[in-house]
Amino acid sequence: MDVDITKELCLQKLQGIGILHVATVDEDGRPQVRCVSAIHYEPDAIYFYTARGKSFARQLEASGWVQMEGMTKYKEMIRLSGKVKKADDQQKWKDKVFEEQPYLINVYPGNTREIGVIYEIRNATIEWFWLGTHPIERRYFTTGNAQWKPKGYQISDECIACGTCETVCPEGAIDEGEPFVIRQNNCLQCGNCFEHCPVEAIIKL
Amino acid sequence: MDVDITKELCLQKLQGIGILHVATVDEDGRPQVRCVSAIHYEPDAIYFYTARGKSFARQLEASGWVQMEGMTKYKEMIRLSGKVKKADDQQKWKDKVFEEQPYLINVYPGNTREIGVIYEIRNATIEWFWLGTHPIERRYFTTGNAQWKPKGYQISDECIACGTCETVCPEGAIDEGEPFVIRQNNCLQCGNCFEHCPVEAIIKL
Repeated sequence: MDVDITKELCLQKLQGIGILHVATVDEDGRPQVRCVSAIHYEPDAIYFYTARGKSFARQLEASGWVQMEGMTKYKEMIRLSGKVKKADDQQKWKDKVFEEQPYLINVYPGNTREIGVIYEIRNATIEWFWLGTHPIERRYFTTGNAQWKPKGYQISDECIACGTCETVCPEGAIDEGEPFVIRQNNCLQCGNCFEHCPVEAIIKL
Repeated sequence: MDVDITKELCLQKLQGIGILHVATVDEDGRPQVRCVSAIHYEPDAIYFYTARGKSFARQLEASGWVQMEGMTKYKEMIRLSGKVKKADDQQKWKDKVFEEQPYLINVYPGNTREIGVIYEIRNATIEWFWLGTHPIERRYFTTGNAQWKPKGYQISDECIACGTCETVCPEGAIDEGEPFVIRQNNCLQCGNCFEHCPVEAIIKL
């Protein structure tokens, strides 16, 4: 399937979702996730607001790593990972977020917004994933100088071209060849080919 | 405000959201979050399906800790944390999830659903959080034998009853007294009282 998805479109779609689900790791190494709508989008960076005293902010201060995810109304899952830093011009972005989202004045009236801090993500990896078609579709993008770490499975030269993997792939995402090839854009990363390969020719990335 | 929210109602509302955002921690200690709809609800446990070979499953196997979160159409944020274990009767719950959600047959046709595994959460902490009112409202619940770890802020007996905290609280969630008292159900946990207390009488939990 020809899918015209770009990183610019992913960012635009994330913005359209409005409320994202933002994951961090707490002081015990456990996963945390909460809704965040106080986000401002620029073409080259994302800014978001939270209160300094929240455990969310403490988790961000500890490692800086965050992953934010949302589902579009067309059921595309988009997620963005990156390391946050405190934005340089705190007042500018704080005022911008409150101007764009007037309901925040109800939560932090008057001067109390000053308890907030603006974090910035400039270098991000973006994953677009769509279950709404068969085979599924996925794409990866990066912004700034972020590096993508490969995921999923790959068929190595050990492949004996027996075709077992092709028959067990739920998505029909494996093409014949020597070696056989996984179409990464259609791969669920479920591991069924890996489990069934008779000569262990499939590598977990 | 009188809010009639119970843990049973939270679980019912989570079920109604349909697609939850599920956070884990990856092998580098970084946060991960993805959409999951393949969830089945019982009164005393939650079951969900994922493929064994996905990095999601590997992360679950590593620590077992998961937090799942969703927003209701009334903009209540509900999140549930717990440690997963593999469910005892894999086939029963697998079939149940695929029966409830026929679209999964499109993703895992025929026998390929066997690459999946069913995880169970029996002991969970649940947080209900609603920004749609002033002051905000939040409640905590547990299921099974889960323990709640207190969060936020508390005013200690060091309080000199000067009233500074009350004036800087964005939610008006602090009541006069000796010591003054934070109404935990209305607290944003923003830390503004903590930062402004002149005698450091406020404790971060």
